[in-house]
Formats: sequence, structure tokens, C-alpha cells
Amino acid sequence: MGRALNRLSVPPLADLTRELAAVASGRVAPERVITGARLLSSYTERLLEDREVWFYRGRIAAVKPAGSARAALLDAPTYDAQGGILAPGLVDPHVHIESSMMTACAYAEAALLSGTTTVFCDSHEIANVCDLSGVEWMLGDARRAALNVFLTVPSTVPATSPAFETAGGDLTPEKIARVFDTWPEAAALGEKMDFVQVAQGDSRSHAILREALRRGKPVSGHVYGREFVAAYAASGITDTHEAIDGSIADDLLEAGMWLFLRGGPPTTPWHSLPEAIKTVTERGACAKRVCLCTDDRDADDLFLFGLDWVVREAVRAGLEPALAWSMGSLHAATRYALDSELGGLGHGRRADVVLLNDALEPQNTWYGGELVVEAGRVTPALDAALSARYTYPKAAFETVRLPAAYTLTPELPRVPCTANVIRTALPGITLFHERVELPVRASWAAHFDAEDLCFVSVLERHGRSGAVAHGLLKDFGLTSGAVASSVGHDAHNLIVAGREESDMRLAVETVRALRGGVVVVRDGQVLAQVALPIAGLLSEGRAPEVAAATAELKRAWRELGCTLPYMGFNLIPLSVIPELRITDQGLVTVPGMARLPLFEAAPGA
Amino acid sequence: MGRALNRLSVPPLADLTRELAAVASGRVAPERVITGARLLSSYTERLLEDREVWFYRGRIAAVKPAGSARAALLDAPTYDAQGGILAPGLVDPHVHIESSMMTACAYAEAALLSGTTTVFCDSHEIANVCDLSGVEWMLGDARRAALNVFLTVPSTVPATSPAFETAGGDLTPEKIARVFDTWPEAAALGEKMDFVQVAQGDSRSHAILREALRRGKPVSGHVYGREFVAAYAASGITDTHEAIDGSIADDLLEAGMWLFLRGGPPTTPWHSLPEAIKTVTERGACAKRVCLCTDDRDADDLFLFGLDWVVREAVRAGLEPALAWSMGSLHAATRYALDSELGGLGHGRRADVVLLNDALEPQNTWYGGELVVEAGRVTPALDAALSARYTYPKAAFETVRLPAAYTLTPELPRVPCTANVIRTALPGITLFHERVELPVRASWAAHFDAEDLCFVSVLERHGRSGAVAHGLLKDFGLTSGAVASSVGHDAHNLIVAGREESDMRLAVETVRALRGGVVVVRDGQVLAQVALPIAGLLSEGRAPEVAAATAELKRAWRELGCTLPYMGFNLIPLSVIPELRITDQGLVTVPGMARLPLFEAAPGA
Repeated sequence: MGRALNRLSVPPLADLTRELAAVASGRVAPERVITGARLLSSYTERLLEDREVWFYRGRIAAVKPAGSARAALLDAPTYDAQGGILAPGLVDPHVHIESSMMTACAYAEAALLSGTTTVFCDSHEIANVCDLSGVEWMLGDARRAALNVFLTVPSTVPATSPAFETAGGDLTPEKIARVFDTWPEAAALGEKMDFVQVAQGDSRSHAILREALRRGKPVSGHVYGREFVAAYAASGITDTHEAIDGSIADDLLEAGMWLFLRGGPPTTPWHSLPEAIKTVTERGACAKRVCLCTDDRDADDLFLFGLDWVVREAVRAGLEPALAWSMGSLHAATRYALDSELGGLGHGRRADVVLLNDALEPQNTWYGGELVVEAGRVTPALDAALSARYTYPKAAFETVRLPAAYTLTPELPRVPCTANVIRTALPGITLFHERVELPVRASWAAHFDAEDLCFVSVLERHGRSGAVAHGLLKDFGLTSGAVASSVGHDAHNLIVAGREESDMRLAVETVRALRGGVVVVRDGQVLAQVALPIAGLLSEGRAPEVAAATAELKRAWRELGCTLPYMGFNLIPLSVIPELRITDQGLVTVPGMARLPLFEAAPGA
Repeated sequence: MGRALNRLSVPPLADLTRELAAVASGRVAPERVITGARLLSSYTERLLEDREVWFYRGRIAAVKPAGSARAALLDAPTYDAQGGILAPGLVDPHVHIESSMMTACAYAEAALLSGTTTVFCDSHEIANVCDLSGVEWMLGDARRAALNVFLTVPSTVPATSPAFETAGGDLTPEKIARVFDTWPEAAALGEKMDFVQVAQGDSRSHAILREALRRGKPVSGHVYGREFVAAYAASGITDTHEAIDGSIADDLLEAGMWLFLRGGPPTTPWHSLPEAIKTVTERGACAKRVCLCTDDRDADDLFLFGLDWVVREAVRAGLEPALAWSMGSLHAATRYALDSELGGLGHGRRADVVLLNDALEPQNTWYGGELVVEAGRVTPALDAALSARYTYPKAAFETVRLPAAYTLTPELPRVPCTANVIRTALPGITLFHERVELPVRASWAAHFDAEDLCFVSVLERHGRSGAVAHGLLKDFGLTSGAVASSVGHDAHNLIVAGREESDMRLAVETVRALRGGVVVVRDGQVLAQVALPIAGLLSEGRAPEVAAATAELKRAWRELGCTLPYMGFNLIPLSVIPELRITDQGLVTVPGMARLPLFEAAPGA
């Protein structure tokens, strides 16, 4: 057991000012000196030569010319940065930790390896499963994490309404107010995803906005479509991470919003940074209200495409390194009015510091003054801290409450009919509504082969309706076996797809046995699985374990021929994105919000 | 009586989001449209062509392409900006309203004429006279003003201690905490002037810092000397307006502080902007954490050298106009985490908007959506609002409590002696300690003629000690008559200077009769006076009246030959600036903080 290493293990600045003044004045020796460094100033966007940073009780007491401590005969342990670049730890203004399938304590490990020392987490996944309790558990988890985890309070739970899906959570304005009034780390209202309802003046949506605004809390956004920006911004929402190109980025900035440029694996639609950054690189907007974020990352990708990678993408897009790093650190801290605490190597700040090479790749990370990553590896101090993680309560492990009996496949039609089919296509966000004429065939296999179809079913898993809905996927590519997941956005019911009922059942029962997870099954065998027993969303493992299991899952997933990756698959029930989705309540059209039957009478029948 | 026009007459955004969304969506007509404008974006630092701004209930519902309201057949009163530049109202992050000798309600008039719609006021002058009550009266005044007046809570009252001067106020940490917990407009802790004590770890100073920091309130600073910056910044202080050149400006920015560049009448030392701005123009610092401020202005100068003038000075120093205006508006709003409310023409913001010509000279000002200045003149709506000002309570008018009997001049020395003399010199901040050998002469007039001296006395005026201290000024230039002021920084005792006791007595008694003020007397006649009956600091008049009286005072002041202007004269008792000052307790050396007698035995005597 190491000593506690979390956000609260550094005393508040209010309690340290006299001591820090004494150190900065040279009357008291610092506890640690990092010397011989260049310093990347997020404040002035300059690279300063020959500096040293003095730490005291987890904070930066002062930045001085290199050699100052020695010249003043101050006796302090000294670390030689050997000309590397000291920079503030990165600050991610918008993440969903649940996407990594890790707890906050586990997430910290991957974050620190990427030079990220602060995240603003919107825990709306666990809120959809466990309501307010889930949010508060995760806040408990966050307080134990070796990472500054602030909450942007989930604002849109459920994503739609009980008419369209059965969720486990219902965050009313009153519950959201309670989070703000109970948890000081509730820094903002999380992304208000129902932008259409906001623009239209929906009363619940605005009641939720009101609870944040009357408390002076910033409100985070999520908006697509230039036609919605005016009303959305007028509703008090002051950031967004969904800009897809330079022109909407322009609109958002001019409407007064902070712009979070999202970088992600380049093959995914999450990587909108290269287009959206053109507001700065081509259209002349000042970058001072532009930040960088990751939003969603699985554990595997988090090691490859962390926020440090996003910063380097901004450099590749043409920005100066010091500006790009400042966008990844100070700008986010400023957006949340925490720039006196985070985001720069200013005096009095938390000693969350990274040592970079000239390619802006993090080598070392100091978190609250403690060396937690050295030469790209976890130090013993961090290793010890990571073994003392938060324990979620028993109820968190009892959220996969599937019906005892269920059918997973629809009956084979005995007359010609039209099927309302969900056509998948990369990148996997929008899913298309196709009407497929089904003649009478001898078996489902015959239909599947003829039309490139497979089964998809959603099982309510919160122990409420016990509903099971059946549908068909087109072009999903799955040639054998089955896949299942308890992470079915946003209500997180269980989604399963396959060609044969037996493999689908094995997949579902494996998820049940795991108390949540994502599994790949073929021919009666489990090929890969990631156990997610916490809320059916989170693993109990450490980051490298979850990353390895995720990588294995992806390999098996591809083996079955699936065209959508598992994160895309998980979005199939998300009934707020066009055109046709499936929830536990059946097929739903978006944005029409109409429910459709799977089979309709064939034309002319 | 016009309708109320103040910060609170615009409803909070939290209560308007649905209505603003409806207007921004075009479902409801705006209440006013300003069309045909270029728009200065403080967010992106660009000038946007052909825009219109829609107002609704005192807020900006949307910014649209010019002609949008008409094209959508929305019926709204429309103002044609005729190609002028619409920009956000200026935000002054650091002012002392008392320096203008006006109430907050009166100050608003001059501010709005200069395009300033928000100020952050440190009311430490009235606090030194009236303690917490004075601060709270001024907050009441601020709530009635046609201006957004936020408070930075006075942090250093008294400036020194009762050992060195008798003040009327003593703002303990407990009282400061009470202001934060009672008044939501207490946005920050005001300038912590005792920077030496802060750096040295003084316990009261740090207890005051702690009350602000533990509440998450920003702390404003005041620091001279590069050697103090490290410890001062480490104490949690995150802005300053005292940078005098590019190198200390660099130090301050790199220590994590926001930099407020102060502009003032170019003949005064307050005009530090041209040197300090070199951190941006010559040394490569990004300007995103640089703001502009006025700090101190008398009423007369406020009309000539408002914050708009400071912005234009920044342009003259080489900055792009859109950046300079953003430094004068958005940057300050961001520093105080109010950028969702102020500082830009973003949707949902207060409709505090100015119309500029190409020279960045304000033509019109809309305050909370109301046209208050048009073509450089106060509109009837503002005129009506200005006639319904806050009334200070009776106690505020009873603060000049001088001893009934007093002597104003020292006895003529009957043996040769050495006098500890205060030598004045422009710019009037530092005052020099001279030892003047006084042989036996027949009269004070003989000494004065021989050594260019005159009398200076300070009378305690809070009804406490009844002390009167006598001193001598050298090089003050006063050739006849007397001047007196109840604004004797920071304790605001009465200071009087003259060559003859009779004129000095007339000056003092005139101030007493006025219940406070600044007066010029000659040959038994009052040449000029500004009555300051509120706390002995503030006039009851409107801005143009106070400005006219101030201008007349300055003329009379010059007529007497005084080398220091009256604002410099008022600083003579300020016992925190080198080298020799006089308070009601006598002569005090700074920074030695030793008390000296006026006369000492002559060398060899």
C-alpha cells in the first residue's frame, strides 16, 4: 500500500499560502527541484530556456532560473530534466470515462502515461444504468483516483423517454441540483445532448439548464447542424465538442461558445479536429477559446490516442507547439475557471507537470508533485497507489437483471412481407432505414444469405419491463457466431446480434454470468470477452489489463466479419441519431420518433 | 422618474433561456434589432461584415446576417448602425470609484459615455473611513447604478496599523468573509497592497487571502519589484495592474498572473501601459491573459481618458484593434469567470453593446438593451435613470469629525535645528526625506523663502484620537494661500498645506463645513472647492458637475503654484510608499516604518 495519491492529497492552496511564500522567497527549501529544463509556458505560449521548478507539498512554489536552488544553498532533492521540456499536465475538458470500460481509478493510469492529469468527466453512461447512485459512486471513485477528475453532471438521462426505451436512470432537475449542492467537484452541467428539444424550448430541458445557470455553473453542449446553433447558444450553453468543420466551428465561437476540438483514432468519425481546426488555421479565428478533448476512448485506444496525441495532431495541423499544448491544458482550465489551480506552471498551482521530448511526447509525469511516470513507465509510487482503488458497492454489481426466459429471434414470416431493417454503414454513427421485401423462404439463413442480414435483439436489463425486441441488421457482415454487449447506449440494455439463436443465447448468458460485459461467441465457444461487472459498463481491472482484453475482443470481433467495431455496435440502440434504431421497446425512427413494427404487409399484399 | 436601469433590471439568463431560444429560432420576434453593422468579435478577434444583433429582455438573443429579421418578417424596432462597428461594452477589471469623487450611480454616466458597461471596483477608500458599513453602502449604490458594478473586496484596510495612523476602518478576515457570504457581486478579493507582508508571511495578510481562496474567489494584486513576484504569486494572487515595464510584465505573466495594463493621463505615472505592453509587442508573450484597466481617475479625467482611450492607446502601441478591444472587454470578463455573461456579443449575454466609429470611438451605448448614449450624448432614458440615484444613509454624511480646537503650525524653533522635511517631486508618488538645517530666523516666512518650504499638517478626522501632526513640505511650490483635503490616502484624515495659519484654518474649516471636500483658499477667500459630503470622499453631484468642479479645482490649485496636483497631494499621508510621509501620528519613514520627530538637534549642537 502506497500513500494516498489523489486530487485531495494535495492540500488546498488556501491552507498553504504562507508556506509557499516562504519557499518562493528562499526562506524554506523546496521539497523537490526539477532543474535543467526548458519550460513550455501555457500562459504566454513561449518556450523558456534554462528553468527550474520548485515543488512544495504537491504544489509549484516557484519557477526560477536553472541553478537557483543550488546557488541559494537550498538543500532539496533535485531531478535533472537534461534539457527536456517541462509543461503543465494536460486537462481534458470532455471525456466519458465509462467509454474506456475502466473505473476512474484505473483510467488514471492510462491518463498519466499520456501526460493528462485532469479530466472533466460526464458520467452519463452509469447514470443511465444506476441513476443518481451511479453518479455518486463514480464521484467516490474519482476522489480516490490518482487524477484530478471533475464531474460535468449528466444532463440528459434518459436520452429520450420511457415511451421509446427503458432506462435505469432518470436524472430530474431536482437530482441534478442535488449533485451540484453536494459535490464541489461538480464543475459544470454535462453535455446537453437533446439539442433539438433545447432549441424548441422543451420545459424539462430548460429546467435542467436553469439549475446549472442559477448556480453559476458552466453548461456543456453537444450540437449538430448550423441551424441549431443560435437557439442552443442563446439557451446558455457555452461549449461544444461536436464541430465537424471550420464553418460550424466559426459559428460556435462567434455565438460565444468555447470550442473543444476532438481528436480520435483517425479511422473514426470522432477525429473531427483536422477539419474543425480550420477555423484557426484558415479562417483567422484566435485560438484563445479553443481547447482539445478526447471524448470517448476505449482502453486500448487510450494508450495510443491520448490527449497528448491530440495535441500533436493540432501541431500537425499547423499550430505552434506551445499554443497547441496550451489548448490542451490552460484553455480547458480557464474554461472551467480553474486556471488558478491547473493548466500552467504558475506559482501556487498543483504540481501536475510533464516532461516532454522535442516531439511533445511525454516522458515523465509528476502528479501533485509525485513522480508517477518516468521514461514512459509507471513508477512504484503510482503502482502502489493503483493497488488501492475505490470499491464500488454491492448494488453496482447487480445491474444486469435480464428476464429469466426470453426469445431472441422473431418468427420466420409465413407470407411475403416487408421488413423494416437497420442498415449499418461505416463510420457507424448514422444507421439507415431500409425496407427489405422478404419473400417466403425456408429459413432465416436463406433470408440472411440473400439479403446480407442477421438478427439483432435488445433485452431490457434493468429488471423493469423485461421487454425483448427483435430486429434485423443489414450489411453488418457477421458471418457466423454472435456478439453481445451490456453497453447499449444510452439506456444500456443488452444488445445481441447473430445468425443463430444458440450462439446468441450463449452470448447473452455469458454477459449475464459476467454480470455485464462484451462478448464474442462462435460455434458454442466464447472467443473473447471483456467482463464489465460494475453497472454492466466497467471492468474491475487495471488499465493495461482492460486494454489487452479490449484488443483481444477487437480481434475476435473482426474474425466474425463484423463491419462495425464494437463501439459502433454499442450505439445501435441510441435512439437520438438517425435513421432507424432498436431499443428494448422495438424499432424507433429518428428524428421522427415513431415506432415501427419489424414486419409490415408487403406492398400489394 | 424613468424605469429602473441597473444591473439587476435584466433578468438572469437562468430565467430567460426558453424565451431566448424562441427568439433565436425565429419563433418570437426580438424586441430590438441593430442592423447594418460590422461586428467586432472579442471571441475570435475578427471584424465580421454585415451583421445584426437581436435583443430580447436586455440580452442578446442572437447575432445574424444583416437583414435576417426583416427577411423572416419579424416585426421589431430596428436601429440602423450604418456600417459602424458593434462591439461589446468594455469591462474594467480594476477601478476605485472613489477616485472619481462620485458615487457609483454618478460614475455610471461617465463610464457609459466611454463605452464601459462593467467595472470591478475596489472600494478600499470608503472602507478606510467607514469600515464594513462603507463597503456595504457602496454595494447598495452599485445595485442602483446604470452600470454593472462588481466588488473586489478591500483586502488591506488599514494600509498599515494604528501604530502609524488612525483610520476609520479595520477590515478583519471575518468581516471580509462576511462580505463574500452576503453579497454575490463580491467577485474577488481586492488588491492585496501589502505585498511585502504577504511575501514575508504576515499572518493577518494570509488569513485574509485564505478567506478568498477557500471560497474559490480570485485574488487581485498590487506588487512592485521583481524580487517580490515569486512569493506574491505563490500566495495565490492572480492578477496585478502595477507592471511598469516589459520585464516585470513577463515575470508576472509567467508566474501565472493575469496582467492588467493600466492607462492614465500620459503626464502621470499611472500611464504604465506603453512600457508594460512590450511584453506582447516586443517580447512575444501571447496577449490572452492581458487586460486593460483605468485604476484611478478623477471625474474630469474620466471624460478624457476612459477605458476606451486606454484601448486606443493599446492600438497605438501596435496591437490590432480587435485584439485591443477584446483585452478591454472579454479578457477581463474571463479573468473573473463571467465570460458567459459579459465581454462579448455571444448569444444569451447581457445586451451591453457599443457602436464605434473606425477610430474605435464610442458613438452609442446600449446598456442591458437600452440605448443610453447616442451620438456621444446621454439619452433621455439614461437621464431619467440618473435622477433616481441611491441615497447614502445619514451616517455617511457624518464622517468629518475634527477636533474642536487644534493648532496647525509648529512653533518657530528658537535654536538652530535639523528639520525632517518631506520633499515633493513629480510624478508625486515617492516623496523624499530631506534633512534641512534651520538656523534661527525671525519668522516661518523667512524659513520658507530661504528653503522653499511650507507647512503641512494632518488632522485626525474620524473622531478618534483627535491627533494633529505638523510637518514641512519642500519644493511643493505653494506661494500663497492654502489647500486642504479630506481625501488623505489611505486613512483619509484631513491634510492641509499652506504658508499662513489663517488661510490653513479657513481651508480646514471649509472642509469641515462641507462635511468633506477638497478646497483651495487664498487671502481669506475660497477660490475653489469640491464638496465631498459622503464619507468625506464622494460628491452628491452628477458626473458632469463633479468633472466641472474638479477642473475648476485644478485651475485654482495651479494658481497657487502647487507643483503636485491635488491627487498627488492626497497621497502625502500614504505611509506605504517611500521615503517620508506624514500621518495624524506624525512623520513615518517607509519602508523602515520608523517614526521621526519634525525637529532634531542640529549636528554639533
